[in-house]
Amino acid sequence: MMEFFKVVEAEKVLKIIAEFDPLGTEEICRDFACGRILSCQINSPENLPHFPRSTMDGYAVRSQDTYGASEGLPLMLNVTGRVSMGTPCTIEVKPGEAIAITTGGMLPKGADAVIMEEYCHLLDEETIEITRSVTPWENVLRPGEDVKKGCAIFPRGHLVRFQDVGLMAALGIESIEVFRKPRIAIISTGDEIVPSGTRKIPQGKVRDVNGPSIYSRLISLGYPIERFGIVPDDERRLLELCKEALFKDPPSDVLLLSGGSSIGMRDFTVKVISKLPDSNLVFHGIAIKPGKPTIFATSGKKAIWGLPGHPVSSMIVMLFFVEPFLHILEGLKQEEKFRRTIRAELRVNLPSVHGRLDFIRVKLHRDEKGGLFAEPVYGKSAMISTMTEADGLVIIPTHSEGFEQGTEVDVLPFHLNP
Amino acid sequence: MMEFFKVVEAEKVLKIIAEFDPLGTEEICRDFACGRILSCQINSPENLPHFPRSTMDGYAVRSQDTYGASEGLPLMLNVTGRVSMGTPCTIEVKPGEAIAITTGGMLPKGADAVIMEEYCHLLDEETIEITRSVTPWENVLRPGEDVKKGCAIFPRGHLVRFQDVGLMAALGIESIEVFRKPRIAIISTGDEIVPSGTRKIPQGKVRDVNGPSIYSRLISLGYPIERFGIVPDDERRLLELCKEALFKDPPSDVLLLSGGSSIGMRDFTVKVISKLPDSNLVFHGIAIKPGKPTIFATSGKKAIWGLPGHPVSSMIVMLFFVEPFLHILEGLKQEEKFRRTIRAELRVNLPSVHGRLDFIRVKLHRDEKGGLFAEPVYGKSAMISTMTEADGLVIIPTHSEGFEQGTEVDVLPFHLNP
Repeated sequence: MMEFFKVVEAEKVLKIIAEFDPLGTEEICRDFACGRILSCQINSPENLPHFPRSTMDGYAVRSQDTYGASEGLPLMLNVTGRVSMGTPCTIEVKPGEAIAITTGGMLPKGADAVIMEEYCHLLDEETIEITRSVTPWENVLRPGEDVKKGCAIFPRGHLVRFQDVGLMAALGIESIEVFRKPRIAIISTGDEIVPSGTRKIPQGKVRDVNGPSIYSRLISLGYPIERFGIVPDDERRLLELCKEALFKDPPSDVLLLSGGSSIGMRDFTVKVISKLPDSNLVFHGIAIKPGKPTIFATSGKKAIWGLPGHPVSSMIVMLFFVEPFLHILEGLKQEEKFRRTIRAELRVNLPSVHGRLDFIRVKLHRDEKGGLFAEPVYGKSAMISTMTEADGLVIIPTHSEGFEQGTEVDVLPFHLNP
Repeated sequence: MMEFFKVVEAEKVLKIIAEFDPLGTEEICRDFACGRILSCQINSPENLPHFPRSTMDGYAVRSQDTYGASEGLPLMLNVTGRVSMGTPCTIEVKPGEAIAITTGGMLPKGADAVIMEEYCHLLDEETIEITRSVTPWENVLRPGEDVKKGCAIFPRGHLVRFQDVGLMAALGIESIEVFRKPRIAIISTGDEIVPSGTRKIPQGKVRDVNGPSIYSRLISLGYPIERFGIVPDDERRLLELCKEALFKDPPSDVLLLSGGSSIGMRDFTVKVISKLPDSNLVFHGIAIKPGKPTIFATSGKKAIWGLPGHPVSSMIVMLFFVEPFLHILEGLKQEEKFRRTIRAELRVNLPSVHGRLDFIRVKLHRDEKGGLFAEPVYGKSAMISTMTEADGLVIIPTHSEGFEQGTEVDVLPFHLNP
């Protein structure tokens, strides 16, 4: 299968991963559905509300009895009772009558509107004076006005948010079918890598950075994930471990190999991948900086990402390619539709090379006037501190030669908070 | 304690909650730190890297031996060996010599730079021709160049991201001190509320919406949370349950009471809160729409939010006041610094009332040219479907009279995805 070095453009990578199908589905409890993707359209099993409900504190009335009422010419109505919350009212509103009601109360028979408390003056215990009129169904939600029984409330592929959980609760929907999240396995490779828990590290060795950082990110995003530790550059052992990670119980859907980014190491990773069952090297290199030496392959229906060994490159590839890929496996479509960014002004020129997409690490600052500006983080590209000091990334597209000083750019911020 | 109806402006609420101190601290494993806030500054215990490391594949050389080399006038060097990954090189680079090295390898003694492979041509097994010169320390990270031993790498109050976990792993930092997350209790109140699992609901009753939606949101954000079910409008029982939620083992830091939004109900909630030990009603009403009937009180060091019973109001108050408050308790500062929004054009006028902050539910659409525009979701304010159909909110500030058609507004999107 060994193929020639196939470098593809970033935009092409996004197209390739968009072709993948979601994994299987599972039924989950509604209350744990935030952030999950529906695998079926949901139709409303009921009308919401299922009875006419007041949306205000005030008096249930017949709207026609209020016509003509004004500040200057108030009308009088007889108060015949009060609606208790949670129970149907036994009395009916007859012409010239009103019944006190609070927000959420069930409209009594005969009434077709609620007049707000602030337009009513209690003259005595049984009489109110109203200073404005109401139209039919004013301050009332009629049965099915919020949601009609049988209507589609959420399409297949919908990302569930907490308000959606609320609507499902209102309708008594207790469990839902969603796409399952991919199971992920991580293996760090390299003769020079020692576990990050190593206190005193031998000369020439370095602690595993990619294993912990990728793990912490994916765990915080709720993925089921298993770590397979560190393997030295030993073809047989790496191949065995890849097979174990992908096929042993529980099998993984996606294998992330964090390997060396040197040319020899890449060949080695490609060789191991080529020996996996039904393997296909999809691409071998992305036209980006940093992050070029990235490998993507499949083994049957499973996916393998060979991430650059360089921590900075590996982090950026995770954010911009691996995570969108995981989202596609869990059923999310069009995730780029409304990407949240922060607009900031560039204070320097950002030159780039045509034919390569550049990720520029930037810090955000506020100027005296409260405007935001983005400043590139200086330092050698291999320094992890350039990532930790940055607030986000500016992307220079593949077919751009960069941005000029003064341009307003979109910054993709690192922090996950809403 | 019963105080007069105290309505405060939204901006004032944000100032009030910003005055709260973070809760205690706890030590956690680094790999679970994404999204947590550091309670102590972290200093680097080591130099990173701790040996001179190559950042490229190529040859370790003495930079002075390369001066003058060019395409037209290449220089020759003797290759005396190869650096193995993960072990120190035993040979030294002497004048006129070069040693093969891969990315991440330890620079051999005598060398002070690495010349990239692409500028080297192998003439025979022991000789290379180089076509450019390198400056001292080119393509090398010197010890401590990424991070110096003893330097501050993260300040107190820093929100940990996955790259920060990576840097800590590189430095062998295995556990860190963070602010603990507030423990939250939820109680739904109301005679009309039945559990959302109720199949057939009696006339006049409605299923609990706020309990499940708030729970699902806070669980997805990783808060430890306990549900105390539904209490009818019974002062004694509600007071008992509030005390249990706040003080019994494990005690909660924050109590969320989702109550009725009717005037009577608010009085009832205020009365119960006033009977809690060391209680203080901080405000009673926020000048916002929707969400006005919101109560905030303290009981000693604990906080109580009385959320509006209206699901839409309750959701908005959660997003804009309760969650920022929780973030402050867990040590996050300046969360508004770089709020991520989506810019969109308004296609209609959005009038508002001076003196009140308005949250407008909007849907985002793309026009033919790819531009984004925001369209208000129409429908009565009490309809939950206005929230589920919206993509986000546009905020009209307290002292604004609205936005005109054509204005570019910031939309705060609901989805949490990065």
